[in-house]
Amino acid sequence: MKLLNNQNILIVGLGLMGGSYAKALKRLDFHIEAIDTNRESVDYALENGIIDRGYTSPDAEAIGRADVVVFGLYPAVFKKWIADYQHYFKSGAVITDVTGVKGCIVYDIQAMLRDDVEFIAAHPMAGREVYGVKNSTEKMFRDANFLVVPTEKNTEESIEWCKELGRLLGFINVTVLSPEEHDRMIGFVSQLTHCIAVALMTCSDNTHLADYTADSFRDLTRIANINEVMWSELFLLNKEALLNDIDRFTEELTEIRGLLEKDDREGLKDKMRLSTQRRAAFNKKN
Amino acid sequence: MKLLNNQNILIVGLGLMGGSYAKALKRLDFHIEAIDTNRESVDYALENGIIDRGYTSPDAEAIGRADVVVFGLYPAVFKKWIADYQHYFKSGAVITDVTGVKGCIVYDIQAMLRDDVEFIAAHPMAGREVYGVKNSTEKMFRDANFLVVPTEKNTEESIEWCKELGRLLGFINVTVLSPEEHDRMIGFVSQLTHCIAVALMTCSDNTHLADYTADSFRDLTRIANINEVMWSELFLLNKEALLNDIDRFTEELTEIRGLLEKDDREGLKDKMRLSTQRRAAFNKKN
Repeated sequence: MKLLNNQNILIVGLGLMGGSYAKALKRLDFHIEAIDTNRESVDYALENGIIDRGYTSPDAEAIGRADVVVFGLYPAVFKKWIADYQHYFKSGAVITDVTGVKGCIVYDIQAMLRDDVEFIAAHPMAGREVYGVKNSTEKMFRDANFLVVPTEKNTEESIEWCKELGRLLGFINVTVLSPEEHDRMIGFVSQLTHCIAVALMTCSDNTHLADYTADSFRDLTRIANINEVMWSELFLLNKEALLNDIDRFTEELTEIRGLLEKDDREGLKDKMRLSTQRRAAFNKKN
Repeated sequence: MKLLNNQNILIVGLGLMGGSYAKALKRLDFHIEAIDTNRESVDYALENGIIDRGYTSPDAEAIGRADVVVFGLYPAVFKKWIADYQHYFKSGAVITDVTGVKGCIVYDIQAMLRDDVEFIAAHPMAGREVYGVKNSTEKMFRDANFLVVPTEKNTEESIEWCKELGRLLGFINVTVLSPEEHDRMIGFVSQLTHCIAVALMTCSDNTHLADYTADSFRDLTRIANINEVMWSELFLLNKEALLNDIDRFTEELTEIRGLLEKDDREGLKDKMRLSTQRRAAFNKKN
């Protein structure tokens, strides 16, 4: 199947990400409907032309009309929604998601899903420190990565379709990863960094230092302003990988501490040289 | 004494910081001379009108002419320079510095310095990931903090003079701290963050993840591109405070790890709520 302009797209969960999908796809002239239990979000989206139709509960007709359903829900809510309402799906519909963890979600959803509906998982690696449809913007996709996360159950066609979705949304990079690769990667580049930022803020009351703060501290703690409901769920759902990452990081920090304690200047320099050299790989992609 | 336009300013060490001081002060019509052992740096600064006169060795006449001497040298080199060349200073000269650690420097310099010359320490909390006079720019001062770090040996006059220097350079905040307060603060907001960024890069070879990197990881590792000569020296000179900070941070990260391990969702949320609440204090100052 191809993503064509005459397809109906239904967005379930009209938050920051769902709203940003809606805005990006609406601009491409797709017909967009949305379901969100928050009436204010639905009204806002309707009034601002972000969606064509909106519902505050799982409307059987709206679901049955959709060729494509995008889930912008938290992982546990997402699973329950599928269990409760999947009988409304149109035969042949494709569903996708925006969930930040995959291993614990994708296989379960695919196992419970009807045979005539395909779930192709995706992770749009974009975000902001603000929430809700009112803050949604497709601009956040422009410099970001879109990850397509298929399993053996997915067809080549849906994988290609999902890659096209990422490009249509405006992502600069579209990549395919297995759920396991995805979760290992995300544990390191995203969840560990959020843990560190939180620990930096909570290890002591340092708010009196705000006057003296250098950019480095601001940069490291920007993400310490964190949605505790979403991130506690994401951490717990990727627990094994994240525990591993925390351990690996802590061991390394302890090693650097040891070099400092024994005045090993050359050892410290070696670490910094390696750090500078590796960081260069990330600069290139900026 | 006041900072007046007919005073001669000598900058010793024409790197990123010395060059940025020169540019900012030249624009205010001060007469600026500079000493740097690197001929290329001196030539570049002369050709680009950043300084009025330049020398590649401690020129007795240039030093003797200066009303103000700004040291942009690494800590150990700074101390040796004072020991070797302070006999050239004009009587009544004021000297200041840009060194990122204070306790181990300020008292030693003041103890060895001639009685007719005053050293008032300062720390311009600005920086870039690039080095040298060619990358110098007074723009980096605009959103940054200038710390004046006096001891009991300093006069009120020189403290006021140094605060005025910070304002003239264009810093948005000028604050006075003791050497001990300075080093505790800098250990936490600057050195600990650099340790963490280095450990994130060196704990595993993660360069293959560059394609998937979210902004959070880029932000946390920007400073992992690090000048190993300068930072290993700064770490070692503030060893005690930094070891303490690393320990406090590691304990906290380990506590968060424990919450994750035992599936304590509410405990994780509490940490995140505290983190978000504290981070707000830093937002206000942005």
